[in-house]
Amino acid sequence: MSRRKFLQHSSRLAGGAYPAMMAMGLLQEAPAHPFHLPGDAKGEHIIILGAGLAGLTAAYELQKLGYRCTILEARERAGGRCWSVRKGSVTTETGQPTQKAAFEEGLYFNAGPSRIPHHHQITLQYCKELNVPLQVYNNVNESAYYFSEGKGPLSNKKIRVREVHNDVRGYLSELLAKAVDSHQVDAALTKEDAQKVVEYLRAEGGLDLDKLYKASARRGYVEAPGAGEKAGRIADPHTLSAIVSSGLLDPDFYNVAEYTYELQMTMFQAVGGMDMIAKAFEKKLTTLIQFNAAVTAIRNTEKGVQVNYKTPAGDKSLQGDYCICTIPLPVLSNIDHNFSSGVSRAIDYANYIKTGKIGLQFKRRFWEEDENIYGGITHTNNELTQLFYPSNDYLGKKGILIGYYNFNEKAKLVGDLSFAQRQQLALQKGRLIHPQYDQEFEQAFSVSWHKTQYNLGGWAVYSGEERQTLYKALLAPDKNVYFAGEHTTYLNSWMAGAFESARVAATAVHGRVSEQRLTYPR
Amino acid sequence: MSRRKFLQHSSRLAGGAYPAMMAMGLLQEAPAHPFHLPGDAKGEHIIILGAGLAGLTAAYELQKLGYRCTILEARERAGGRCWSVRKGSVTTETGQPTQKAAFEEGLYFNAGPSRIPHHHQITLQYCKELNVPLQVYNNVNESAYYFSEGKGPLSNKKIRVREVHNDVRGYLSELLAKAVDSHQVDAALTKEDAQKVVEYLRAEGGLDLDKLYKASARRGYVEAPGAGEKAGRIADPHTLSAIVSSGLLDPDFYNVAEYTYELQMTMFQAVGGMDMIAKAFEKKLTTLIQFNAAVTAIRNTEKGVQVNYKTPAGDKSLQGDYCICTIPLPVLSNIDHNFSSGVSRAIDYANYIKTGKIGLQFKRRFWEEDENIYGGITHTNNELTQLFYPSNDYLGKKGILIGYYNFNEKAKLVGDLSFAQRQQLALQKGRLIHPQYDQEFEQAFSVSWHKTQYNLGGWAVYSGEERQTLYKALLAPDKNVYFAGEHTTYLNSWMAGAFESARVAATAVHGRVSEQRLTYPR
Repeated sequence: MSRRKFLQHSSRLAGGAYPAMMAMGLLQEAPAHPFHLPGDAKGEHIIILGAGLAGLTAAYELQKLGYRCTILEARERAGGRCWSVRKGSVTTETGQPTQKAAFEEGLYFNAGPSRIPHHHQITLQYCKELNVPLQVYNNVNESAYYFSEGKGPLSNKKIRVREVHNDVRGYLSELLAKAVDSHQVDAALTKEDAQKVVEYLRAEGGLDLDKLYKASARRGYVEAPGAGEKAGRIADPHTLSAIVSSGLLDPDFYNVAEYTYELQMTMFQAVGGMDMIAKAFEKKLTTLIQFNAAVTAIRNTEKGVQVNYKTPAGDKSLQGDYCICTIPLPVLSNIDHNFSSGVSRAIDYANYIKTGKIGLQFKRRFWEEDENIYGGITHTNNELTQLFYPSNDYLGKKGILIGYYNFNEKAKLVGDLSFAQRQQLALQKGRLIHPQYDQEFEQAFSVSWHKTQYNLGGWAVYSGEERQTLYKALLAPDKNVYFAGEHTTYLNSWMAGAFESARVAATAVHGRVSEQRLTYPR
Repeated sequence: MSRRKFLQHSSRLAGGAYPAMMAMGLLQEAPAHPFHLPGDAKGEHIIILGAGLAGLTAAYELQKLGYRCTILEARERAGGRCWSVRKGSVTTETGQPTQKAAFEEGLYFNAGPSRIPHHHQITLQYCKELNVPLQVYNNVNESAYYFSEGKGPLSNKKIRVREVHNDVRGYLSELLAKAVDSHQVDAALTKEDAQKVVEYLRAEGGLDLDKLYKASARRGYVEAPGAGEKAGRIADPHTLSAIVSSGLLDPDFYNVAEYTYELQMTMFQAVGGMDMIAKAFEKKLTTLIQFNAAVTAIRNTEKGVQVNYKTPAGDKSLQGDYCICTIPLPVLSNIDHNFSSGVSRAIDYANYIKTGKIGLQFKRRFWEEDENIYGGITHTNNELTQLFYPSNDYLGKKGILIGYYNFNEKAKLVGDLSFAQRQQLALQKGRLIHPQYDQEFEQAFSVSWHKTQYNLGGWAVYSGEERQTLYKALLAPDKNVYFAGEHTTYLNSWMAGAFESARVAATAVHGRVSEQRLTYPR
């Protein structure tokens, strides 16, 4: 059997052959081929709560098997947090008037997920299966800035990431090279290997022949090299002391974001907005989704499950054999149910992150035209936290920046402001970095996820202890109700979490109905 | 005057206002707006030798001013080294039969430049001016491999870049944190700042609470995290000793490639092949280019310049007022001329790098499908040196890998092989990394630049001393002959060098003809 046939065959086995293949050295991880469960349904009715990615995926996979699926969705749109804000997008937040986006046609920003890690095969595979074109999300950009407000000698200056990265690498490599050279550290290395480490540090740090850091072209030029006599001129480095006392080694700026497994390049985004993924599912499921259907009660009954919901046309009720509930826990917590006390506790106590973003539309792409910044992230120690430059339509006319992307306390503070005040704050802090804001700003749209109706949180965050208690309670069905969504995975905040959880739930429901022993992914 | 008007105005001043703007803090470097020289030509005839990017750009800019330009190009195509190999591409190398590419329609690889740094504004600006669409060139990919052949305990294994990066960061951060903690190094820091450095090292290295490196998710998972109980499992780190003795800290693998200013993300490529840039220029200049015109002599005369050249229809001669010669120096060295001894010496002695690439077409994109590698570079210590994964058509059907990209001694060795032998070597060494080669390979096309007719080298490489001697001799005109091309810049190997040098030459010629004092860029 050829390797390719073997792969195709094994994908039909719902993953049973993957461990064998891994042992054969053919694969490092299981590939995410289209998902096929064996056997057919007999038209059992599955009620799916929420048309976010988890709900959409569960319905998509179950209807392939012959299940009758109904998705109840509280909003007028599908996608949940997988939401790109463009002209006409509407949001409702606690204590705020309804907000409608008036961005120029063709412009958007991803209010929810904006990045796909290259190893989230399940996400890439659904994009392929549903013909959603992808492009590189440029998460790493040495040309973006660190901006430390009100702290130390480098405060209130925009410092290119490359300057800090290379100065810090330089100084710390110099220190360690000295220490290894003078046998002040025990690296458990042979003398010869220690010498190689020192040579490596000289390259890593960009040190001179004497192993001293004296700046290098890596940190950029004051005058770029060019033709003729233009050899280029390099600026002096920042001192280590200035970098440290300006807080640029503080967690606000740690290099580690791009070291994180999920944020390592290569990263992707859907062309035209991440919600193209949700829309692609929706297109396959149009007849199954009931919009404007806000669930008010979920009850296990003797015959199966009953779900009550509100619609503009009045209160309604639906009977199903099984239910897959993908409603975010802070929302579910306000819905009547007869779940066990363990499940009920998980729903009421699981923690969700507070987080918010603002999209700022500008007349021109000054970050590209004036500052050579194409994609990537500027980091600050103020309320903005992160400023995202778009990874699409490079060299185009207008553009939308994500003017802040903040978390926890900062997100709470900003989320408590009115839409107008958030815009004011984003502009006031943003113009410290980009004075072009004054001339070029056109309009804004902000989202505070923990204030957003039908979300009330960014994503689930479990402590190690909570993984053993709250989290575990959600992994088994409560009678005929199954739980899915990123909150039932270790892939919190990622679309892959929604997809994986949907497959797990679909596998579990189908296994129960068809009386097969099925596990996903193996 | 608005900033925007100011910019537009200043661009007409050929850059004279940029230093003032930089002082105003508006710009860090001069922006590359369309290039305009003041005044008009009176139809003087400029002979341009070579339809590479430098020659094309010089003609493009000079004809805007009213000059009569003739470009003599030895080949049947424009673009020079800016060449994407696709179906029908032909190459002639010393001692080899003519080679014709038979790649599948739509597939290509960039035999010459494949990357545009985000700060090469002149390149981006020409792409914008000529409507050449760009996409991200994904130069950084933590998922690619290091492959050390025949050296140490990690030899002949493909090690993900992320494993080496994070293990090395971990061990070296641990060592330095220890040294700083125990005051074994003098970092010229206050006690408080030293503490911050240690905290930073803990984050940088992914150290545990005791500041020890014990692997982390950054180096990837053996079992990926997922839904339910799938928390993910991390492998043990490689030991520092194993990494060192396997040569993974040797220059072959140094992390520094992506630290280099020119290779820092963001990087771009032209959609559909880098030669789309050359083709865009060519479209504007079709009537000016004489193809199949191989220059045999260049002579300053009393009236201007005379150029002799061979064509399929016989030997010809052309008179011009001035000449801009962009012919690569190793080729020019074989052409008759009456230049000064200084110029002649530069032409004969300037050093060009030996370098080569091979494009390998595969039936399927196994590096993506099986191994999660989307773009980026695998590094080896063997003849392959680098293996480039395509940064386009992700998740597509077929694809072309650059199976080796080597330099100097390795390029010489491989360049001396026949086309068939090169392919054999690329497959033999490549299958050590990707055993899928055996099943999936379809066809190859290799280019050895130092063996290629009308190039005879990769790009100019000057020592510090040569910059003061050989290089300088080429910066002034030899009577009415001006020199341009990357070899007359500090941007060797980059397309920006061709562009910058063409602007410098056009400025100099036009200044002389119009009796204006003009300098570029200021």
